[in-house]
Amino acid sequence: MIELTHDDIEAIEIGAAILGTGGGGNPYYGKLHTIAEMNKGGKIQLVSLHELDDDALVISVGNIGAPAVSMEKICEGNEIVRAIHALEDYMGKKVDAIIPVEIGGANGLRPAAIAAIMGLPLVDGDGMGRAFPEMQMTSFSIYGHSSVPSAMSDAHGNTVIFKDLKDEQWLERLARACVIQMGASAGMVEAPMKGSFVKKYAIPDTVTQAKNLGLAVINAHKENTNPIEEICHQENGQVLFEGKIVDLERKMSAGFTRGNLQIEGSGSYVDQVANIEIQNENLILKINQRVACSVPDLIIVLDIETGHAITTEVLRYGQKIAVLAIPCHPLLRSEQALKVIGPAAFGYQDIDYQPFNQN
Amino acid sequence: MIELTHDDIEAIEIGAAILGTGGGGNPYYGKLHTIAEMNKGGKIQLVSLHELDDDALVISVGNIGAPAVSMEKICEGNEIVRAIHALEDYMGKKVDAIIPVEIGGANGLRPAAIAAIMGLPLVDGDGMGRAFPEMQMTSFSIYGHSSVPSAMSDAHGNTVIFKDLKDEQWLERLARACVIQMGASAGMVEAPMKGSFVKKYAIPDTVTQAKNLGLAVINAHKENTNPIEEICHQENGQVLFEGKIVDLERKMSAGFTRGNLQIEGSGSYVDQVANIEIQNENLILKINQRVACSVPDLIIVLDIETGHAITTEVLRYGQKIAVLAIPCHPLLRSEQALKVIGPAAFGYQDIDYQPFNQN
Repeated sequence: MIELTHDDIEAIEIGAAILGTGGGGNPYYGKLHTIAEMNKGGKIQLVSLHELDDDALVISVGNIGAPAVSMEKICEGNEIVRAIHALEDYMGKKVDAIIPVEIGGANGLRPAAIAAIMGLPLVDGDGMGRAFPEMQMTSFSIYGHSSVPSAMSDAHGNTVIFKDLKDEQWLERLARACVIQMGASAGMVEAPMKGSFVKKYAIPDTVTQAKNLGLAVINAHKENTNPIEEICHQENGQVLFEGKIVDLERKMSAGFTRGNLQIEGSGSYVDQVANIEIQNENLILKINQRVACSVPDLIIVLDIETGHAITTEVLRYGQKIAVLAIPCHPLLRSEQALKVIGPAAFGYQDIDYQPFNQN
Repeated sequence: MIELTHDDIEAIEIGAAILGTGGGGNPYYGKLHTIAEMNKGGKIQLVSLHELDDDALVISVGNIGAPAVSMEKICEGNEIVRAIHALEDYMGKKVDAIIPVEIGGANGLRPAAIAAIMGLPLVDGDGMGRAFPEMQMTSFSIYGHSSVPSAMSDAHGNTVIFKDLKDEQWLERLARACVIQMGASAGMVEAPMKGSFVKKYAIPDTVTQAKNLGLAVINAHKENTNPIEEICHQENGQVLFEGKIVDLERKMSAGFTRGNLQIEGSGSYVDQVANIEIQNENLILKINQRVACSVPDLIIVLDIETGHAITTEVLRYGQKIAVLAIPCHPLLRSEQALKVIGPAAFGYQDIDYQPFNQN
C-alpha cells in the first residue's frame, strides 16, 4: 500500500488522459477535486490487487455522461458518494475499497477524490484499462459479475437504484436514459465485487500505469526528449500517423459525443489521409481507407509537440497531432471480451479485429 | 367492505373508460386480467376511505406508458407486483392496501387484478378522479405526499427504485425516460401513504363511481334509453358537441400519444366545428375556436350510438361522436392543484381555467 502524493496525482492526470483514447472526459477536474480533498486532509491509499482480501467488498465507481458536457458542467462532487451510500443502505453492507470503473479520462482520477472523501483505499486497477463509452464494457461485466444492484446520483441529489436487470446491456440502457435527463452527468456505482473476483478480472496496476505514463511525459519535458517516443517505449506502442486535422464532425447524440476526424498526413505521412471514428472514445483508425487499428486496442491522439492527449471535446481544426496505437490488456482480447468491446459491438460488423502488436 | 363481482368488473370497465377522458389506456385488458385472477380464486375486497385505518400503509399503483402501445403490447401481469415487492423489500415494511393511481382507463382496473393476486384490499378512490398523462398529477402529490421511494418494473423483470428525487417532476422525468427504454409499458408504484392522508386527499369513491357509470350505460342499453343522457344525469355533465370526426392527427412523441381531433357538427351543432387537443388524455375542447372546456375538468368522447367511451388510440376518421364535459372533483380545482393540472401545466399558458358546471 502506498499513499499517493500531489505529484502522483499530477502525473496520473496526464496518463489517464492518454489512456482515455479521446474519451472518458478530461481528468483535469478530477485532479482539482482530488487535490482539494487532499488539501482538506483526505488521504489516498493505493492498494495492489494482490494486497486485497479475498472477501473485501470492492465497488467500482465513475461518472457517467457525455465528455463534451463535463467540460462545462462541473460535478457537484458528492454524486458518487451518495450513490455508494444508497447502495450500502440498500444492501445493508459497507464497502471496503474503491476501484475506478475505467482508468481512462476523468474516471481515472475521480475515484481518487472519492477515496479521499470516504477514507477508503483505492485499488490499483480498473475495469477497462482505458475508457469505453458504455457500462457493460468492463472486464468485470464481461467475466460474469452482475452489476446489479447499482446506483446513480446526480448533482441535485436525485438517486436511482437499479435493482434487477435482465442483462448488463439493460443497465446501460436505463442508466443512460436517466443520465440524459440528469443533464448528461451523474455518479454511478455498481454492485460490489469480492476481492477474489477483482484480483482475477480487474485490469491490473492501471493507476500506476497512468502515473508512469504521466511521469514519462513530464520527464521528457524536463530532459527535452521526445515524450511520444517515451510513451511508445513504455507501452509497447507505435505512432501510426502524424498530420493536421482537416475535418472534424462532432455531435451529441443519445447522450454520447459522436464524431469523425480527418487528418492530412505530414512528415513521413505526407500525401496520406487518416480518419478516426469516435463514440466518446476513438474507436477505429483508418489510414488511406484501410483499418490500421480498432477497439479494444488503444487509439490515442496526442499533441505532436507536447505529447499530451487531446480529448474528443477539445479536438479542433488545424491541430497537429500524432496518432498512437497501444495494445490493450489480454483480458480485453478474449473471444468473450470481443463480443462486448470488439468493432462489431460498436456497429462495425465489417471490421475484423486484428490485435495490434500482439506479443 | 364489499367484494367485487364479475358484473361489477364489467361495469367498471365501461366506467373507467369514460373517466379516462380518452387516455389511461383501454381498460379491456385490465378487465381480462382481473377476471382471470378472480377465476383462479382471487378476491377483490373494496374498502371505502372511511373504513381505512389511519395507520394503514396504502400504496398507489398503476401502469406507466403510452396507451397506443398498450393496445399491442400486453402486460406480462406481474409488473406491479414486482414493483410492490421491490419497495417492500427496500423499506422493510409490508403494505396494507392498494389504491389506483388513476381511475380512468386501464389503471382503473389493473389495480383490482393486483389486489386479487396479492390478497390485499382495494381502496375505493384514486389519485386523479380521471386519467392524467404525468405522474406528478395526482392529488397525493399535489397535497404534499412525496412519491419517493418509488419503484417500477417491466415485463422482463427490470426493476428500478427511485430513492431520492429533487421534486415530484423528477419522478416523471426519470421514470418516463426508463419506461421509453422498457418499450413504453411498465408497472409503477409510489411510496406508501398513511391511511389518514389517503382519507383526506384521495378522490373518494371513484371505483364505485366507475361502476355506477358502467351500470348506467348497461341499463340504458337494456331499457333502450339514451346512455349519454344517463351519464350526464349521474355526473352533473353536459353534452357540449356532437358530430363526425373529420380530421385526426395522432403521433407518439417522448413516450406520449399526442394529437388533435377535428369534429364537424351535426344535429343541433350543424355548421359548427370543434377540436380537441390530446396528450394521452383530452386536454382542451374548443368549439368554433373558443375554449368550451379544459383540464382538469373531464372532456369525454363517446360513441354517439352506444355511449361507450372512445379512447385516444381507437379514434378514427368518420366516427360519430358526442363530446361530454363532466366537472372534476373539487380537490382538483384548488389553486395548488391548478398549478399542476390546469391548462398552463400542459403548455396552454393562454387558457384561463373556467370551472365547468361549478356548484
